Amino acid sequence: MSCVLQNNAYGKSRVRLTKVIRQPQRHELKELSVDIQLEGDFAPSYTAGDNSKVVATDSMKNTVYVLAAEHPLNDIEGFAVHLAQHFTQKYAQVKSATVHIQEDLWNRIVSNGSEHKHSFVSAGDEKRVTTVTSAQGALEIESGIENLLVLKTTDSEFWGFVRDEYTTLPEVRDRIFATSVAAYWLYGQQQPDFNEIYARVRQLILDVFAKHHSLAVQQTLHEMGKEALAACPHISEISITMPNQHRIPFDLTRFNMENKNEIFVPTDEPYGLISAQIVREAKQMSSIGADKAQAKIR
Amino acid sequence: MSCVLQNNAYGKSRVRLTKVIRQPQRHELKELSVDIQLEGDFAPSYTAGDNSKVVATDSMKNTVYVLAAEHPLNDIEGFAVHLAQHFTQKYAQVKSATVHIQEDLWNRIVSNGSEHKHSFVSAGDEKRVTTVTSAQGALEIESGIENLLVLKTTDSEFWGFVRDEYTTLPEVRDRIFATSVAAYWLYGQQQPDFNEIYARVRQLILDVFAKHHSLAVQQTLHEMGKEALAACPHISEISITMPNQHRIPFDLTRFNMENKNEIFVPTDEPYGLISAQIVREAKQMSSIGADKAQAKIR
Amino acid sequence: MSCVLQNNAYGKSRVRLTKVIRQPQRHELKELSVDIQLEGDFAPSYTAGDNSKVVATDSMKNTVYVLAAEHPLNDIEGFAVHLAQHFTQKYAQVKSATVHIQEDLWNRIVSNGSEHKHSFVSAGDEKRVTTVTSAQGALEIESGIENLLVLKTTDSEFWGFVRDEYTTLPEVRDRIFATSVAAYWLYGQQQPDFNEIYARVRQLILDVFAKHHSLAVQQTLHEMGKEALAACPHISEISITMPNQHRIPFDLTRFNMENKNEIFVPTDEPYGLISAQIVREAKQMSSIGADKAQAKIR
Amino acid sequence: MSCVLQNNAYGKSRVRLTKVIRQPQRHELKELSVDIQLEGDFAPSYTAGDNSKVVATDSMKNTVYVLAAEHPLNDIEGFAVHLAQHFTQKYAQVKSATVHIQEDLWNRIVSNGSEHKHSFVSAGDEKRVTTVTSAQGALEIESGIENLLVLKTTDSEFWGFVRDEYTTLPEVRDRIFATSVAAYWLYGQQQPDFNEIYARVRQLILDVFAKHHSLAVQQTLHEMGKEALAACPHISEISITMPNQHRIPFDLTRFNMENKNEIFVPTDEPYGLISAQIVREAKQMSSIGADKAQAKIR
Repeated sequence: MSCVLQNNAYGKSRVRLTKVIRQPQRHELKELSVDIQLEGDFAPSYTAGDNSKVVATDSMKNTVYVLAAEHPLNDIEGFAVHLAQHFTQKYAQVKSATVHIQEDLWNRIVSNGSEHKHSFVSAGDEKRVTTVTSAQGALEIESGIENLLVLKTTDSEFWGFVRDEYTTLPEVRDRIFATSVAAYWLYGQQQPDFNEIYARVRQLILDVFAKHHSLAVQQTLHEMGKEALAACPHISEISITMPNQHRIPFDLTRFNMENKNEIFVPTDEPYGLISAQIVREAKQMSSIGADKAQAKIR
Repeated sequence: MSCVLQNNAYGKSRVRLTKVIRQPQRHELKELSVDIQLEGDFAPSYTAGDNSKVVATDSMKNTVYVLAAEHPLNDIEGFAVHLAQHFTQKYAQVKSATVHIQEDLWNRIVSNGSEHKHSFVSAGDEKRVTTVTSAQGALEIESGIENLLVLKTTDSEFWGFVRDEYTTLPEVRDRIFATSVAAYWLYGQQQPDFNEIYARVRQLILDVFAKHHSLAVQQTLHEMGKEALAACPHISEISITMPNQHRIPFDLTRFNMENKNEIFVPTDEPYGLISAQIVREAKQMSSIGADKAQAKIR
Repeated sequence: MSCVLQNNAYGKSRVRLTKVIRQPQRHELKELSVDIQLEGDFAPSYTAGDNSKVVATDSMKNTVYVLAAEHPLNDIEGFAVHLAQHFTQKYAQVKSATVHIQEDLWNRIVSNGSEHKHSFVSAGDEKRVTTVTSAQGALEIESGIENLLVLKTTDSEFWGFVRDEYTTLPEVRDRIFATSVAAYWLYGQQQPDFNEIYARVRQLILDVFAKHHSLAVQQTLHEMGKEALAACPHISEISITMPNQHRIPFDLTRFNMENKNEIFVPTDEPYGLISAQIVREAKQMSSIGADKAQAKIR
Repeated sequence: MSCVLQNNAYGKSRVRLTKVIRQPQRHELKELSVDIQLEGDFAPSYTAGDNSKVVATDSMKNTVYVLAAEHPLNDIEGFAVHLAQHFTQKYAQVKSATVHIQEDLWNRIVSNGSEHKHSFVSAGDEKRVTTVTSAQGALEIESGIENLLVLKTTDSEFWGFVRDEYTTLPEVRDRIFATSVAAYWLYGQQQPDFNEIYARVRQLILDVFAKHHSLAVQQTLHEMGKEALAACPHISEISITMPNQHRIPFDLTRFNMENKNEIFVPTDEPYGLISAQIVREAKQMSSIGADKAQAKIR
């Protein structure tokens, strides 16, 4: 029997970094977690324990800190591009470098009505992320937002679905809609103002969520995607995932009380999971981007 | 040999509740997780499997939802008092009822410059909590804040500590100070405006953190406690815990670069853990409150 | 501008199930968590809020319990096949159904030297998993093991890697090797004895880990994959991921003591992440299976 | 107004340590996480930022590794005693040192029927723990087990409890009983073979759980405590906590099927929480030990 090493990759994950930019008037704070994965001519390490082309993951870690010291870190996309290209340009054996960055978000502490110049309070679990791949001279930049936790108390319906012998869910014209939005958008060939687009997509997701009268989680998700593509010409596609974090009405009639659509049981599991990829125009499914979106949906 | 059932307690934990108050102009949202523990005449259940005095924990769960339907839920303290007194007043066998409530915090979505009337975005991992004990006709109300994650990039020093054969930490005049504040304050006999005091203590913790020039985590912690007691006459004591979430300088000199106090490695473990209980006046240590504070410190 | 709904999927996740098979001599216990994702003719729900073809995720949940009541649950693969085919066969609008099952593992309590007939103790965080896709009359069955946490105290080296200006890691001839193995193998067209193959691959991973003299995590990983393919003709490919859970030597020389390779600091982050896909013969990269493996590596 | 620093403590948490004892025939592996808390003459650090008596938590961390290098680590209790006494004896300002150790448990890999001499597989999430306090020349040693996750499929009843307007739970004569046992026992003045007693209490908890016909979680818990005190003369008291990890029958009658007590929904929340402290003889409640048990129950 013969077997073949079909794919391989290795790297360093959770390289955490704090950078302080000490400007005279106020300090800027960036906190990131960086993951690096390299593909290339590394088969000898797998098949023979020959590490002569292996860049140690410990060296990747050092590289993150060294490059961060010299980089302005205006946006995570720029730093991820810099890191990914560093690996493909410096090491001939690296055919592809993928850099994923997750940014922990901080707000300035507001004290006596003004923003403090060097003190911060966490913006919560919401994360800004990017994944940049440098391969064969080309770049792919996907950015996103994760754990954007939202809830609306009305303007959400769900009815008209298949009713058969497995159905017990009643149709409902007014339910709570709660979800943790994850959205990932792919940039085209230009490198626009990443911070501005991030802020715009984030606000737009909140706006659509607040204002859209929802007949299905699917419909609201699609509306978000459509609006994002309409508002951001630099984005060629967007993938959104929205788990349905159910609030189940508690049945008060068992206690001789009226159900007034006020008391609910929040549950973590099981949960509905809705996702879609919306693109500016129909794509061939052979591209790397489509495969990755597919994987996300699965 | 004889053995004795010295203490016992039982209850229901993580009873999660969403209540929507549907006012004409805007909806109010409350999301809570309630824990209940009862002590009393329950020894027969332990020693003989005789459950005749046992209030099933499933019934406790039902009670939370039924009472929540009738309660305004203006503040978690009021609801916890209501629940705790319900158990001690309704069931003669209950000698003591402790109700702990953790509130998940939500902000209104701001869309086109105004707060939306029924759509919310999570305020993050920060929690508002209260623990109320009803026993022998008396109430003890302790409230708190947890996971208030803050970071300042300067105005923090640490030097002058013991140097001996186990010491490798350099003295430092300018370090990052990051912590996740947990603070618990005990109310006196009156029941004041709990929401107002919560907001005041929270803002004060942020203010002190931002403005205090810190010579030790201990000193900043103590300053917060002092200020809280000074600002809130209804609080008789406050216990604060502040883990030191270290940002360790990355040594760039190994790469022929200068250390400019800009690049740090955030680490989760190990972490320093600093705590103290500050009281309005010296207390005898025999009280239940002191024991609990002691336990928290340990 | 026109935009296109390129991909979409929805389903229910974390449907948790306990089944007890009450045999006269002893009870069998199965605890599963089931995720279901459907693809098909669901675009109207996204684009128009028309749910007429939508099988509610609540109905999917019910289906899991109803089908589990009638199914022997001998292995998770058989149940996942049954569930996936149920959705594609019952609902014409479902073009593809993917069922992922994670099994919580239990051991019998051994008391007085014999296995108890109805009492169990958790086997820990290690999970047995399977992912079955039913689409267009075809089945794809991938099974796996996750969180198999292993550590060896010697017989692991790492040297001969690239040394450049970013390298500070010393070469080492004797280090601790700790990892949490995740392995996923793809079955061919036959449905063999899934339990037997699972047990065989698991034992083989442990055997290789224990006995292989490792020159790189990559090499040990590859050896596991080769051995699995050699031992299990029903498996056509295997993907393995091994995070390198570093144990960093603590430098005792700072305290006038000798480093004897005995005292280490376990760290969770950053961590190396090594992966590969090993196949029985070279595959074309256009298949769904390869895309998924690719996604896992990324 | 005057306020008083009533209690204070500080220390280092999650100091993680791996020690390998390289014996000729086989290697021994110990993996620990150590928490240290000191109380004493530290008020000046809080009130004035005067750190002259402060032992830096970084130095505590170093101390753990240095002392571990010289200590046999036969059991976590012995090392915790050594550490606690180190701090009270070396530093006059330390009035009390509390050391908590959590041990990650490993089993040897069994390959070809025999235990491997230097390769290990995780024993899961179950932890062995100890908390040792050294104060005023006295020692208190409490040891325990956490996350011992057990389930029995029958021999558990729950009926005869209070039925009133809040009760919906049916009485049940045959239910699943699942829990995650946490048990903590206090040693007397002698220091016995800690490993032997740990193994004995653990096995006894499993034996009682498997064999006891349970009329209430409370009753099974009490039986465990009684048996532990009867079997282990060196233990003066034991506190046990048992969350009731409910398996809720899924109602198949809605689908025209019979409920045969085979299909259940495992739920994480809400959960019952049952606890008790069982002592060899009635104790005065003024002792530190009783306070701590009280706190655990709350």
